[in-house]
Amino acid sequence: MNIDGFPSRLLENAVYEFARLPGIGKKTALRLVLYLLKQNAESVEQFGNSVIKLKKEIKVCSICNNISDNEICNICSDNKRDNALVCVVESIKDIMAIESTRQFPGIYHVLGGIISPMDGIGPNDLNIDRLENRIAENKVKEIIFALSTTMEGDTTNFYLFRRFSKYGVKISTIARGVSIGDELEYTDEITLGNSILNRVPYENTLPVK
Amino acid sequence: MNIDGFPSRLLENAVYEFARLPGIGKKTALRLVLYLLKQNAESVEQFGNSVIKLKKEIKVCSICNNISDNEICNICSDNKRDNALVCVVESIKDIMAIESTRQFPGIYHVLGGIISPMDGIGPNDLNIDRLENRIAENKVKEIIFALSTTMEGDTTNFYLFRRFSKYGVKISTIARGVSIGDELEYTDEITLGNSILNRVPYENTLPVK
Repeated sequence: MNIDGFPSRLLENAVYEFARLPGIGKKTALRLVLYLLKQNAESVEQFGNSVIKLKKEIKVCSICNNISDNEICNICSDNKRDNALVCVVESIKDIMAIESTRQFPGIYHVLGGIISPMDGIGPNDLNIDRLENRIAENKVKEIIFALSTTMEGDTTNFYLFRRFSKYGVKISTIARGVSIGDELEYTDEITLGNSILNRVPYENTLPVK
Repeated sequence: MNIDGFPSRLLENAVYEFARLPGIGKKTALRLVLYLLKQNAESVEQFGNSVIKLKKEIKVCSICNNISDNEICNICSDNKRDNALVCVVESIKDIMAIESTRQFPGIYHVLGGIISPMDGIGPNDLNIDRLENRIAENKVKEIIFALSTTMEGDTTNFYLFRRFSKYGVKISTIARGVSIGDELEYTDEITLGNSILNRVPYENTLPVK
């Protein structure tokens, strides 16, 4: 019996590997590993291989940095989409969130993070050069910033705005305002203030225009 | 882009595999997979292989059903332990919990579950025969029930008690009473009643006797 009370070194290794994942503690890791241990050998192998295969075979889209099974991702290679309209996002999770709205007809650019001096992330750590090339080559008419509405997101927006404004490209940002279901008395004053300054014609909010 | 908005089939497969684990939803699964994707290839391979290897190479102790790297587990093969004193538990997690107390000098028997008619688990689904053999062969002096204090645990205790009593083996159960830190006014009446019926000499509770 080793120090942590694991009856088996193999079990301990597997638990240790799971406990390295974010938000998974040792107890949860043990629960997950024991669950896997109860499954048949084939499905456990499938689990393990799905991760190994993902890491080995996944590609990054050479246009937008989205992850992809191919050289160019499904969105960039879709000729029904407007590739002069580029939405700048932090990560592929944001692409999935925006895609699920079915409201965006353009393509994306994944920065792979946002400028965050506290975490030691500067502009050079992000995929900005490739976006700048796309703009410089006159392939882009409008870019939309869709970053988090945090200090870091705003900093990144401002940095990109200053860097790209010389190209004369149209730069917009997703609307900020009260969310569906928000009660006004609990909405913070900055959001509420913005929502008044950036008010929109009422007709625009109707489902059928 | 497929229905769920995954930019890659490989990513979707890996997320699907994680989302099959208990307590892991699709969003968490995606977060975990994207985390793994950021790690280097070697550590991802290590993760996947730890699970596959575990399932392939793990053994079940031929004495107590504990999982083990060897034919007989570390506890059963430890000759410093009293193998006439057998603690009956539901799963290996319980062994780990009891081992962490460092209070138990005997060995274990893992049932692999408890009798639960609601879940369709009867005595024949548990590892009871092997325990009965150990008792019938006169290898056991005392068995201690350490199952959950639930209806199912109590049912299992009673079933085992009736089945084993003919062997004249001493049968005990772990003490039930108020936990450390419990406030009496919030303790349920059954627990509190038991703790009065089964009161212990005060000297026994002192750290040094």
